[in-house]
Amino acid sequence: MIVQMKPQASKEQFKRITDFLVAKGFGIKDASSETNIVFGIIGDTKSLNPTDLEAFEGVFQVTRVSTPYKLASRSFKKEDTVIKVRENIFIGGNQFVVMAGPCSIESFENTEEIARAVKASGASILRGGAFKPRTSPYAFQGMGLEGLKIMREDADKYDLAVVSEIMSEDMIEAFEPYVDIYQLGARNMQNFHLLKQLGARTKKPILLKRGLSSTIEEWLMSAEYIMASGNENVILCERGIRTFEKYTRNTLDISAVLAVKELSHLPVIIDPSHAAGKYSMIEKLSMASYAVGADGLIVEVHPDPEHALSDGAQSLKLEKFDHMMQELTKLSKVLDKKI
Amino acid sequence: MIVQMKPQASKEQFKRITDFLVAKGFGIKDASSETNIVFGIIGDTKSLNPTDLEAFEGVFQVTRVSTPYKLASRSFKKEDTVIKVRENIFIGGNQFVVMAGPCSIESFENTEEIARAVKASGASILRGGAFKPRTSPYAFQGMGLEGLKIMREDADKYDLAVVSEIMSEDMIEAFEPYVDIYQLGARNMQNFHLLKQLGARTKKPILLKRGLSSTIEEWLMSAEYIMASGNENVILCERGIRTFEKYTRNTLDISAVLAVKELSHLPVIIDPSHAAGKYSMIEKLSMASYAVGADGLIVEVHPDPEHALSDGAQSLKLEKFDHMMQELTKLSKVLDKKI
Amino acid sequence: MIVQMKPQASKEQFKRITDFLVAKGFGIKDASSETNIVFGIIGDTKSLNPTDLEAFEGVFQVTRVSTPYKLASRSFKKEDTVIKVRENIFIGGNQFVVMAGPCSIESFENTEEIARAVKASGASILRGGAFKPRTSPYAFQGMGLEGLKIMREDADKYDLAVVSEIMSEDMIEAFEPYVDIYQLGARNMQNFHLLKQLGARTKKPILLKRGLSSTIEEWLMSAEYIMASGNENVILCERGIRTFEKYTRNTLDISAVLAVKELSHLPVIIDPSHAAGKYSMIEKLSMASYAVGADGLIVEVHPDPEHALSDGAQSLKLEKFDHMMQELTKLSKVLDKKI
Amino acid sequence: MIVQMKPQASKEQFKRITDFLVAKGFGIKDASSETNIVFGIIGDTKSLNPTDLEAFEGVFQVTRVSTPYKLASRSFKKEDTVIKVRENIFIGGNQFVVMAGPCSIESFENTEEIARAVKASGASILRGGAFKPRTSPYAFQGMGLEGLKIMREDADKYDLAVVSEIMSEDMIEAFEPYVDIYQLGARNMQNFHLLKQLGARTKKPILLKRGLSSTIEEWLMSAEYIMASGNENVILCERGIRTFEKYTRNTLDISAVLAVKELSHLPVIIDPSHAAGKYSMIEKLSMASYAVGADGLIVEVHPDPEHALSDGAQSLKLEKFDHMMQELTKLSKVLDKKI
Repeated sequence: MIVQMKPQASKEQFKRITDFLVAKGFGIKDASSETNIVFGIIGDTKSLNPTDLEAFEGVFQVTRVSTPYKLASRSFKKEDTVIKVRENIFIGGNQFVVMAGPCSIESFENTEEIARAVKASGASILRGGAFKPRTSPYAFQGMGLEGLKIMREDADKYDLAVVSEIMSEDMIEAFEPYVDIYQLGARNMQNFHLLKQLGARTKKPILLKRGLSSTIEEWLMSAEYIMASGNENVILCERGIRTFEKYTRNTLDISAVLAVKELSHLPVIIDPSHAAGKYSMIEKLSMASYAVGADGLIVEVHPDPEHALSDGAQSLKLEKFDHMMQELTKLSKVLDKKI
Repeated sequence: MIVQMKPQASKEQFKRITDFLVAKGFGIKDASSETNIVFGIIGDTKSLNPTDLEAFEGVFQVTRVSTPYKLASRSFKKEDTVIKVRENIFIGGNQFVVMAGPCSIESFENTEEIARAVKASGASILRGGAFKPRTSPYAFQGMGLEGLKIMREDADKYDLAVVSEIMSEDMIEAFEPYVDIYQLGARNMQNFHLLKQLGARTKKPILLKRGLSSTIEEWLMSAEYIMASGNENVILCERGIRTFEKYTRNTLDISAVLAVKELSHLPVIIDPSHAAGKYSMIEKLSMASYAVGADGLIVEVHPDPEHALSDGAQSLKLEKFDHMMQELTKLSKVLDKKI
Repeated sequence: MIVQMKPQASKEQFKRITDFLVAKGFGIKDASSETNIVFGIIGDTKSLNPTDLEAFEGVFQVTRVSTPYKLASRSFKKEDTVIKVRENIFIGGNQFVVMAGPCSIESFENTEEIARAVKASGASILRGGAFKPRTSPYAFQGMGLEGLKIMREDADKYDLAVVSEIMSEDMIEAFEPYVDIYQLGARNMQNFHLLKQLGARTKKPILLKRGLSSTIEEWLMSAEYIMASGNENVILCERGIRTFEKYTRNTLDISAVLAVKELSHLPVIIDPSHAAGKYSMIEKLSMASYAVGADGLIVEVHPDPEHALSDGAQSLKLEKFDHMMQELTKLSKVLDKKI
Repeated sequence: MIVQMKPQASKEQFKRITDFLVAKGFGIKDASSETNIVFGIIGDTKSLNPTDLEAFEGVFQVTRVSTPYKLASRSFKKEDTVIKVRENIFIGGNQFVVMAGPCSIESFENTEEIARAVKASGASILRGGAFKPRTSPYAFQGMGLEGLKIMREDADKYDLAVVSEIMSEDMIEAFEPYVDIYQLGARNMQNFHLLKQLGARTKKPILLKRGLSSTIEEWLMSAEYIMASGNENVILCERGIRTFEKYTRNTLDISAVLAVKELSHLPVIIDPSHAAGKYSMIEKLSMASYAVGADGLIVEVHPDPEHALSDGAQSLKLEKFDHMMQELTKLSKVLDKKI
């Protein structure tokens, strides 16, 4: 960590902060020039918060030079993490995984139709919402536990794994028999209590969506919360960030995949449905996701989006999903990752 | 709600969506011109989601023309809501309330020193964190229940009310005896499960902070969640939004106070500490908050910010807080709100 | 255009705005429900500004339902525009064009080395800055006219076309003999005076970069300025937008390519160098650009980025550029566009 | 400037960058710890660009520790700059200046009515657009030179100074006899060519608006361009930044006033009209601007906003402007700055 003092900082102010750091066991390495008083802090600064040091009078700015996360970092673990979901399903490495399904689970029949279709097209994991985070209290909130049971049954019929979003730590035990992957939604990415509970109470993989306005560092810090609590099976998911542009629902930050690959060993997939919010863009964004090196996709599909109970505008029809999978298969012939 | 079809939309596509809406009991009012097919939907559209209608083929764009919230809206209730915290403490109306205290509760003595000082300077509510949401799992996470007890005891000694942040619905019963106001943090603004539980299980006021990247509409929708669950005592709190500018920790959206006053009857206060992240800016931002018409402030203070366990950089020293209160008192002589 | 009145708007207020519109020759089509007064404006609303109508008392919100641009819009011209740069070089259609070169022109020899290499790797257009927009007045501002001459000579030697940025209308005549494409930089996207002058005074194609915080609509409006002034050869270029995320220099908005394809007939290319600001990301972002359906790339390359006079951090070495071109060539075997 | 190498950086990479810097005359001061290679660069780094150093292999990140601007910086000049506009009009210091007038100059009579009214209410400078930057080529582009003449004549009649926006360096000589202050609009804040020309060719004050997505540092760098070209009379103007929030036209970054006061000696005013885009918010935002310590305001007013040729939605009626001035006068009784 590098501390830069204000130009007019006094010697006494310099002494106060360095004494404080030395008393905590850190070393001090001076890098001042004639016009700037600057020093480095030597030691394990993971528990130091730059803003706490900025409380010292005379300090202008404090900059981290090491990552504040450890378990999630590429420097802690060099090789890519490959997560085993079950017998034949791995996420990371040279695999490109496709998770597909409806925004909300609506009925056994509807889910079965989707499960059969996405399996036939090449998906290996069924996604679906049973407990839905909705902006409006007046909107459909999901089928609840009944929805999870339906997903499990229909997924088993077609040999698919199951991923579904959990919104409260009270539900962990209820979810455990039904899901293969716990999804943690964008709005809960910094629900630290839930992160810790999930980390401690399940060994199944966690799909951690990036928050709407979370930096890549904060996202990896949330992964660190889960990992430090005991579960290292974290799959990151970029799903678009909030910007000034409103033509798309969010702005897909495709470079985030490359950033994650540089900074971390964890696998990272893309959710083009929530990023774009428009079904017309899904196929092309999926192709871009594959080409950029993502480890997979999570996509919303529905046999009849016009009558879906939620997110119809961004759901692919089954035949359009199938077309997308064929296009991805073409790409797979020239890319390293296999679909 | 106004639906605009694509220029090339077919008659059949127009019929499909209008049939769907009519079957749901809505009326249709055509507003098309020669070049654009546009129609209004007549009826209570609160449960309709624009993006669901955008799932229909041929639809270009769907725009709300009524607010998606009701209980929180100014058109539902014309006069300003004034919330009674306890005997002599009201929020809203012609009062300007000041909540002050440390970021984290650290000890009985430290809290007592702060309580005595902020009371003497004119604050009426003690703020303090017992359960702390921290970006890093390695940072101090708060004293927990012990912290709440300390706050209560020290606040009572100086006749202050207590506000503290709750991070999980599991803690509602534990909080109830100790706090006068439940704080819901920015990162949990869309933790819908927690919103519903708070709305249903306590009658005490809820201080609802705006999420880092939440629109004003989403913020009011979160208030609506609480209100629709049974608790109408919601105090809104603007605390800065995330933008490209990094000189300040966040960007204080001071106009949001005026927007809330136009759209809603609920009181709204400002948190300059988290908005700016720099103690040097707090006094002036507090004066601006008062001048713009906010209903109060929540401010971080600490007798020794350099040694605070968290957020020292944005904490005011006790004498600086006192100075700020004197400046606000000057303003109070020419403004309608009384401090 | 749809006008929504405030709930409490009076009949007289309604009459004032509708009288005003009727006097201007527009028709009015009522779409009000019991709770909302809403009406459509019938006629050519291109010259009406929604915010001007919001000046009328009683108006809550005015929404466009037709695009404010015409010549640039897909509904004006259905088929994709293909721009002829010169004999064998076309942009748009089923071609994927690659423009490559140094950030700044530094010398004849340096430019020649680059021209030879990028041509050999498969680029058809040489990019390079002679007049450089730099954030700091103390930074290298480019070689000026001498730089343009060098580019032209080296480009001709290797049968490449030339694209370079123009910063002032005073330079149009000076540029004309040297460039095949005029580049309009992101910071000048809304320099309306320059847009008009370029549109009127040259017939050569204009490469119009998207502003750092420009919406897609504003970008197309800037294209409309050029087209309405007499030059319809506009190539759009997405180069990253400014967001809260700072790991990359900007955030590449890859979905913008799809948005442009929906809204306009103009070709659109991607500049991954400025978007990412990191050479390590260029190859993968270029692959994603190709896969998403962009019409080409503009990429910074340099034989010795460590000693480049500007933008070294985002410049590819010549051999890395060659590797990238090979990877793109692999993709070309399975994609519709040919490189 | 602090350079941090990647964890895996080699000794040779370290040598390459430090040799490069030493050859340029800089000193190197090592601040490495066991796990991080970090060093400071000693010398005048104003002409060094962090991103150029990031081109060196093995470099992870380069951070400035001194400001990249000099003439504009508070450390270069400690005391506040007070700019003399003419005999009795000063900007900066303990004055609070009010500039008011129409968005566009429309006619002699309309301008005279406004000039008389704003003078009577207490404004000292008449604002007005003669050359208008408009998003659409089909919108009213201003009266041109004729507008400037009208302004000058009407302003002189009521002893007001004149500020108007210039869009091209070709117009500098034409503006000189008519304006007292040149306004540089937000969209041209990084039109570096225009900045340099203005700096060199006029001695009159320049009102430099902040770009829609410009950081405070970039804004001060643009001021530096003007100052380094020979004109030190720069007045900064915060006018709202672009964020995800769309209820207001832009987001007023009121903290930017405090940031500028910390970093620079230049005066800074606020434009609440463009920030909010809604006349209903202007009075309260003006009061907040005064309370936060801004040096003045620039406000749009119009006798009949419903029929204004541009920006009616954000223009105050003359009587509302007068009310605002009375409210500000109340504030002036308790604040240090005098109106």
